[in-house]
Amino acid sequence: MTKTRKPLIINAFDMGTSGLQSPGLWKHPDDQSAKKDLDYWINLAKLLEKGKFNSVFLADVLGGYDVYNGPRNLKAAINSGAQWPVYEPSLFVPVMAAVTKNLTFGVTFSTVSEAPYHFTRRLATLDQLTNGRVGWNVVSSYLDSASRNTLNGADLPAHAERYERAEEYLQVVYKLFLSSWSDDAVKLDKESGIFTDHEKVREINHEGKFFKVPGPNIVSPTPQRLPVILQAGSSPSGKDFAARNAEIVFLTTFTPESLAGKIEEIKKIAKEKYGREEGSIKFLQLVTTVIGKTHEEAAEKYRHFKSFGDKEGASALFSGWTGINIGQFDPDQELRDVGSNAIRGVVENWTKEAPGDPPNLKKTRNYVADQITVGGLGPVLYGTKEEVADEIERWVDVSQVDGFNFTYAITPGTFEELVNELIPELRKRGLAWEDYPEEGLTFREQVFGTEGEDPSFVDPTHPAYKLRWRAGVSKEDFEASLNETTT
Amino acid sequence: MTKTRKPLIINAFDMGTSGLQSPGLWKHPDDQSAKKDLDYWINLAKLLEKGKFNSVFLADVLGGYDVYNGPRNLKAAINSGAQWPVYEPSLFVPVMAAVTKNLTFGVTFSTVSEAPYHFTRRLATLDQLTNGRVGWNVVSSYLDSASRNTLNGADLPAHAERYERAEEYLQVVYKLFLSSWSDDAVKLDKESGIFTDHEKVREINHEGKFFKVPGPNIVSPTPQRLPVILQAGSSPSGKDFAARNAEIVFLTTFTPESLAGKIEEIKKIAKEKYGREEGSIKFLQLVTTVIGKTHEEAAEKYRHFKSFGDKEGASALFSGWTGINIGQFDPDQELRDVGSNAIRGVVENWTKEAPGDPPNLKKTRNYVADQITVGGLGPVLYGTKEEVADEIERWVDVSQVDGFNFTYAITPGTFEELVNELIPELRKRGLAWEDYPEEGLTFREQVFGTEGEDPSFVDPTHPAYKLRWRAGVSKEDFEASLNETTT
Repeated sequence: MTKTRKPLIINAFDMGTSGLQSPGLWKHPDDQSAKKDLDYWINLAKLLEKGKFNSVFLADVLGGYDVYNGPRNLKAAINSGAQWPVYEPSLFVPVMAAVTKNLTFGVTFSTVSEAPYHFTRRLATLDQLTNGRVGWNVVSSYLDSASRNTLNGADLPAHAERYERAEEYLQVVYKLFLSSWSDDAVKLDKESGIFTDHEKVREINHEGKFFKVPGPNIVSPTPQRLPVILQAGSSPSGKDFAARNAEIVFLTTFTPESLAGKIEEIKKIAKEKYGREEGSIKFLQLVTTVIGKTHEEAAEKYRHFKSFGDKEGASALFSGWTGINIGQFDPDQELRDVGSNAIRGVVENWTKEAPGDPPNLKKTRNYVADQITVGGLGPVLYGTKEEVADEIERWVDVSQVDGFNFTYAITPGTFEELVNELIPELRKRGLAWEDYPEEGLTFREQVFGTEGEDPSFVDPTHPAYKLRWRAGVSKEDFEASLNETTT
Repeated sequence: MTKTRKPLIINAFDMGTSGLQSPGLWKHPDDQSAKKDLDYWINLAKLLEKGKFNSVFLADVLGGYDVYNGPRNLKAAINSGAQWPVYEPSLFVPVMAAVTKNLTFGVTFSTVSEAPYHFTRRLATLDQLTNGRVGWNVVSSYLDSASRNTLNGADLPAHAERYERAEEYLQVVYKLFLSSWSDDAVKLDKESGIFTDHEKVREINHEGKFFKVPGPNIVSPTPQRLPVILQAGSSPSGKDFAARNAEIVFLTTFTPESLAGKIEEIKKIAKEKYGREEGSIKFLQLVTTVIGKTHEEAAEKYRHFKSFGDKEGASALFSGWTGINIGQFDPDQELRDVGSNAIRGVVENWTKEAPGDPPNLKKTRNYVADQITVGGLGPVLYGTKEEVADEIERWVDVSQVDGFNFTYAITPGTFEELVNELIPELRKRGLAWEDYPEEGLTFREQVFGTEGEDPSFVDPTHPAYKLRWRAGVSKEDFEASLNETTT
């Protein structure tokens, strides 16, 4: 029974750190994650482009996982190398862009870490350098350890204020990218000597609750006009933020059924509250794969990976992700019963288990930490390439997910397996494209296609759409249209 | 008469903008400065490494030149493309690092633009990615247009406070780089499972007038431990800052005699006030070269370049650099007489003139703006390669300068001329090395040599020297030594 399939969005998920989702696996003899140097990024980019990956997504945090046995206790994270140290993600993009033509790049930047004017120029430079191959994963940070160091000692603002601030931050970034320079501002007219027409550049004069940014933007319009907006929020504010602004949403859950529910929920808010067009948000699920020639070989490989896992590191990650110090609980206590909504939310759909685990184990903190050591808070699909592809198909059928963020147990080993084993199998089934549709597409064109008037820009139901100063529109007319939009 | 020469430090001076020091020359048919895309940086890096350049220095501003006919008037800068738009410099470094082995990179970052913790990680990532080939040009910004947009609408702090703040900022960066992780903190011990020994990582707990940064640093010790510190200040506070902290100082003046005076002055402060070791600061002069097969051909080429110059753009740059709106003066008024110390300081040593200029011209604003259109506030040396090399020798003899920042009239044309014509001529005279001393040296080793105990670190008289937590020293002993240092 062959179904008509459309190619999935296939991303690699990496970070400027060793123990991204698999704390302790740097000890595996084939793992190179402890030394992500220039050659690592060059080789990874070439490998992913060879495998026809859409994109590499770079996660980031600017603080350590100090909640476990804390507050402010970094011992487990530091000793185990669980997302510690962490290098700056944006700087890996130019390396990878220099050796590829089609691979695109999603980069995590927090709205807490730097002034939006400064950040906008960094992001615009990435879009310009990569010729439109970049997206921004908007995060508002969840670790006090990050804000403490960047906000002069202050802890993070409360959750709701953080999202309010993030929303205003995004507005400033939109305005700088879209409302400061007209599409036809840059003339490069050698006759008149006009490089940029100063009548086509305006101050944005943003004055809000958190930011005052007069502008004008210091960079000219970039290939995508606005990099693709990515988001991974799973809290109520996060979902709302994603439903309004995101073009790609990252999710992670343990069952396709629960994934389906999350996707539906965000789609509903997007449609009903914000009037977003059907299909204007793509959803990706985090997953780790372990492939073997036989099911048993894959199971054995997975078990072997687990033997390198660091449970203390996993506990540090889990406590940071949930904001709850799980060190306070009995190691053998069922985590669903501990009275934390954050933890119950994570554990409720927990189906993750490694080969050989006895069935129906209690989800104790010990057990959960152990399972996190490979693949973190995402499922691990293991088996032959056909079995894993079957499972991918099941996830797609049940959840209608648009693609996957594939992360590693070991790197580049897991990515090599994807390129050489799983993706060719997905390709056979129509779940991966044969090749990039054409050379040099922008990130947005690769994901949403090249149809329409201006495929490299957001669709008309995106909140940034009307902020764009189009060619041929005078400053007065544009400002009048902006006033209409906001009133 | 052959003299014993030592090789000069030979740098290329570029920026993420078109009209760096030659406003208007983007109109020249061979100039590519208006499109500095990925390929531009790849090709430039390869060209410079082929020419055995030490380094490429990237200038930066995060605001427009709006002083001329201002305040807040960007018309001249925008229309002429005089440092407008400006892209973010750090992102060009990974591109160039990916295609070179020896070229080093000096990057401008302002102490006004972002939190020192956030910045330190960016700089550390560059040092890690390039394997120690990076330096930081410390600037405290001079354009209100920059701070207005990054400091929530505020104009720049007053000059003295800016340097006080910059000095504290630098202290925070030093501490994060050097005092937070011991040299032997990273163990990668697969037996014990220790990635980093948490006993070898400490909070810096910086609390000063401007910054409160608890730490610890989120990145591990980098190849140079601290990137090379570069500085270009020419004000009294700037000279003091350079004398204390800089390892390389950029200067620009129009005569080798005046250069000699500036070098002597900074050396004197460095030695007498800060006890810096002889030779621990290298000095570089900005220069633009125009080479021809004959003197006449070079003169004609220079005249031809000048014909593309944009005087309005030059006036915008000059007003921004001096902080004085020269639009207020009569175009034919002698600038030395206008009562501004900043302007008099610049114009007093003005010997710059283009071929064909009548002698003893008044330094009117019109004349000065016209001369700035090629080479900005640096001299233009033009002639045959032998003539220009002679002039270089004269500058070295008179000023004892250690090297030059070569910038472009057109790019990459001017750099190609350097690689193919001038540098081989300098090499003949012992003023340029035959090749890199060895492959993969750090920036500091290339400039200061590979002698000594730890040639990739600062010398013992540098203020950062004692902040370094060395291998084998316990946290307690290190903290005791820090207290000794500060008391």
